[in-house]
Amino acid sequence: MVSGLINFAALLEPALEQAQLGFEEGGVPVGAALFGAEGNLLSVGRNRRVQEEDPSIHGETDAFRKAGRQKTYRDKILVTTLAPCWYCSGLIRQFNIGTVVVGESTNFAGHLDWLRDAGVKVVELNDPRCMQLMARFIEQRPDIWNEDIGECECDAPH
Amino acid sequence: MVSGLINFAALLEPALEQAQLGFEEGGVPVGAALFGAEGNLLSVGRNRRVQEEDPSIHGETDAFRKAGRQKTYRDKILVTTLAPCWYCSGLIRQFNIGTVVVGESTNFAGHLDWLRDAGVKVVELNDPRCMQLMARFIEQRPDIWNEDIGECECDAPH
Repeated sequence: MVSGLINFAALLEPALEQAQLGFEEGGVPVGAALFGAEGNLLSVGRNRRVQEEDPSIHGETDAFRKAGRQKTYRDKILVTTLAPCWYCSGLIRQFNIGTVVVGESTNFAGHLDWLRDAGVKVVELNDPRCMQLMARFIEQRPDIWNEDIGECECDAPH
Repeated sequence: MVSGLINFAALLEPALEQAQLGFEEGGVPVGAALFGAEGNLLSVGRNRRVQEEDPSIHGETDAFRKAGRQKTYRDKILVTTLAPCWYCSGLIRQFNIGTVVVGESTNFAGHLDWLRDAGVKVVELNDPRCMQLMARFIEQRPDIWNEDIGECECDAPH
């Protein structure tokens, strides 16, 4: 069980640092971090589609990977600078990650109600730094952003 | 658009080889392969939770990664020996993978109707070799299998 005393906003910082680093690298600026029940940092990650030419590395999947094998995720807290896409929402649901802290859901709404319906505790921070960083990237590189969320001009609306 | 002339059953073979290789390595025996619209093989992958101590590598995510960045997945065919979990179903949905070929869904039912509702073409093969390999692993190593699908004795039913 996640402690009621945790300051979720403070947990955003390492995830935001990862997003900023990703931006400086020319990548999709989404960062994430996984914490234990007491707010102890287990891992950080960031989207590296561009940096490693690897479409499978979203911020959330990277942090999940870096934390290694865990007995349970029910007591873990996944922090991400941007609302998770279906890929990352599926990860959260499959592994029963107990709490998800979302930096912002303005640039991408994600599927937060779907997670809540599955019993996930979702904390929304509406952090302006996350919003501005993501908006800046989407404006500069809409092509890469659309690729990262599986939207292609060649596809019909879905 | 995927050709109507493709023999989906034949596409299972490279995925099944990966699953068998994973089994021999002591890993979770789920294999996958990604094909282009004409049935041309783009990549193969297998679950490597045990082999690399990496919980993020499911068969499907591995094949997705190995194929590198793609403009679109609408015309791609993802073949997997076992029905995809939420994590891999989310991947399929986010990237609009057009067709998913499922070796078996007896040992793990997955969320095939959820994929169909999202417009994914799902082909079920009910292959006895896939069923037997997976059943053998689950019998031998229920602990690793449960870990791989996020089920833990320490968790309450979810």
